[in-house]
Amino acid sequence: MSDLPTLDDVRRAAERIAGQAHRTPVLTCAGLDEMVQARLFFKCENFQKAGAFKFRGALNAVLSLSQAEAGRGVATHSSGNHAAALALAARLRGIPAQVVMPDNSPRVKRAAVAGYGGRITLCRPTLQDREETLARIVRETGATEIHPYNDARIIAGQGTAALELLAEVDGLDLVLAPVGGGGLISGTAIAVKGLSPRTGVIAAEPAGADDAWRSLQEGRIVPSIEPKTIADGLRTSLGPLTFAVIRDKVDRIVTVSEEAIVAAMRHVWERMKIVIEPSSAVPLAALLEKKIDPAGLRIGLILSGGNLDLDRLPWQTAA
Amino acid sequence: MSDLPTLDDVRRAAERIAGQAHRTPVLTCAGLDEMVQARLFFKCENFQKAGAFKFRGALNAVLSLSQAEAGRGVATHSSGNHAAALALAARLRGIPAQVVMPDNSPRVKRAAVAGYGGRITLCRPTLQDREETLARIVRETGATEIHPYNDARIIAGQGTAALELLAEVDGLDLVLAPVGGGGLISGTAIAVKGLSPRTGVIAAEPAGADDAWRSLQEGRIVPSIEPKTIADGLRTSLGPLTFAVIRDKVDRIVTVSEEAIVAAMRHVWERMKIVIEPSSAVPLAALLEKKIDPAGLRIGLILSGGNLDLDRLPWQTAA
Repeated sequence: MSDLPTLDDVRRAAERIAGQAHRTPVLTCAGLDEMVQARLFFKCENFQKAGAFKFRGALNAVLSLSQAEAGRGVATHSSGNHAAALALAARLRGIPAQVVMPDNSPRVKRAAVAGYGGRITLCRPTLQDREETLARIVRETGATEIHPYNDARIIAGQGTAALELLAEVDGLDLVLAPVGGGGLISGTAIAVKGLSPRTGVIAAEPAGADDAWRSLQEGRIVPSIEPKTIADGLRTSLGPLTFAVIRDKVDRIVTVSEEAIVAAMRHVWERMKIVIEPSSAVPLAALLEKKIDPAGLRIGLILSGGNLDLDRLPWQTAA
Repeated sequence: MSDLPTLDDVRRAAERIAGQAHRTPVLTCAGLDEMVQARLFFKCENFQKAGAFKFRGALNAVLSLSQAEAGRGVATHSSGNHAAALALAARLRGIPAQVVMPDNSPRVKRAAVAGYGGRITLCRPTLQDREETLARIVRETGATEIHPYNDARIIAGQGTAALELLAEVDGLDLVLAPVGGGGLISGTAIAVKGLSPRTGVIAAEPAGADDAWRSLQEGRIVPSIEPKTIADGLRTSLGPLTFAVIRDKVDRIVTVSEEAIVAAMRHVWERMKIVIEPSSAVPLAALLEKKIDPAGLRIGLILSGGNLDLDRLPWQTAA
């Protein structure tokens, strides 16, 4: 495919979003290092604006639009972090964001989108109704659809987190990121393999939503059907673009249990004193479950976000 | 009193602990700034070693001992962050730490002390038995008792957090810290008034444990009797040293409700994506409750620590 994003696209995205996206800190934790017998470097996208890496891609996409396109706004259907990120990115450019959300979306998620000025259209909670509603809005308003991950601008934007990580930490042996739709791991792999070909890139996926793993096994996109995982950001299927990048550039996909995800999340909260959502914990879970032998390695992990319902924590609902 | 610590003591403490204590980050949050209409700078001692500012004072005290003193170890009675901090500081110097803990201490707190190599002696949960047990251990081992706050070395060590805050952030109008036994606010006031006399220093205290407020009103130490607050780090009474420093250098003490503490804590978790314990939330609670008019000011807040039981969060147990 000629339209796969490149390291140069990631670099241009980094220039585009500089100053408006946070350059998030890289944290370390002696206690976790000891636990897995490796040196871990956590890129903290939970501290990113709107609480997740998604803002990088959304902002890059919004800032890539021509003046004429921008004037008609952007649109997406999403019930998660992408919707909030797109709404905020659009507000920063001063353009409208139309967000189609299923009418059973949690109130907290609607509030986040509305809080950033997104215009919400509710639809029935089926993929068909979401897509039809979005198509109608795009037809009526001329807005540009911004897909949450199957979009070169989005992928390039998500890659800027790894670009910053590699600029700050030398000699990484591995970089790990979670995989859902594949935008983050694709951008990460493009950045890492472009800058440091010897560094391994590993995607971590919940065993209960292992469509990326199965897709790589079968050599075609296997959709995610009835995914069962607490990592709500990772229930989506790959798209053609992210599938192609992952097949070309990701060294391995490893799957992890729900128990390991919850344990890893709790370790990060307790030891690092930071709030991460379950999806963020999946790479560390892979180390805890020894799906990768980390002994002595320098490992970068991308903590994807920190948005979750503080009234229902997984170690409590699990009990 | 001639033995009150000075700015020079804080500076010497900073040199002593450099490299072994974390220079914790100062975080900002646009959402919270908007909420209180001020510029807030959070000094994140929840990221300090052993999870709280207490490590600064404990390490300074341990490193201040002569070789002969150090050889006989240190001792304290405490069920909280000081015990863990002292155990870790002692381990770093390679000396024993004796910790007297009431036999009803939560398992998690005992585990923290034991995890850092502290030698625990259990006693009955009365102040008298704690003091007698400690006195016996000091007699038998020759260990140096390190009081959690009524000690010039401890106060000077705690002041290093504010020293770093002022080195990083210019033109602060106010610095806020919680007050329990008074070690943190005393060190903070010495550092702030020494470096920037025009900057106000305000102590924030739970209304349900307002012994510091009452002590200042009455001009003598009024002990904390049956304190009722979720901020478990702030239930202790002032000591003679901390009382004297607070009387001389703290501009105001404000008290806050339990509801405001819980709300402030939750705002920090949700907006800043960091884990803080209830005591840390007390200064922000004072701003939320308008006990201080923050409009347009530049305000430093010391987040004192991040140690709490993740199985029981206050907004859940309150429900």
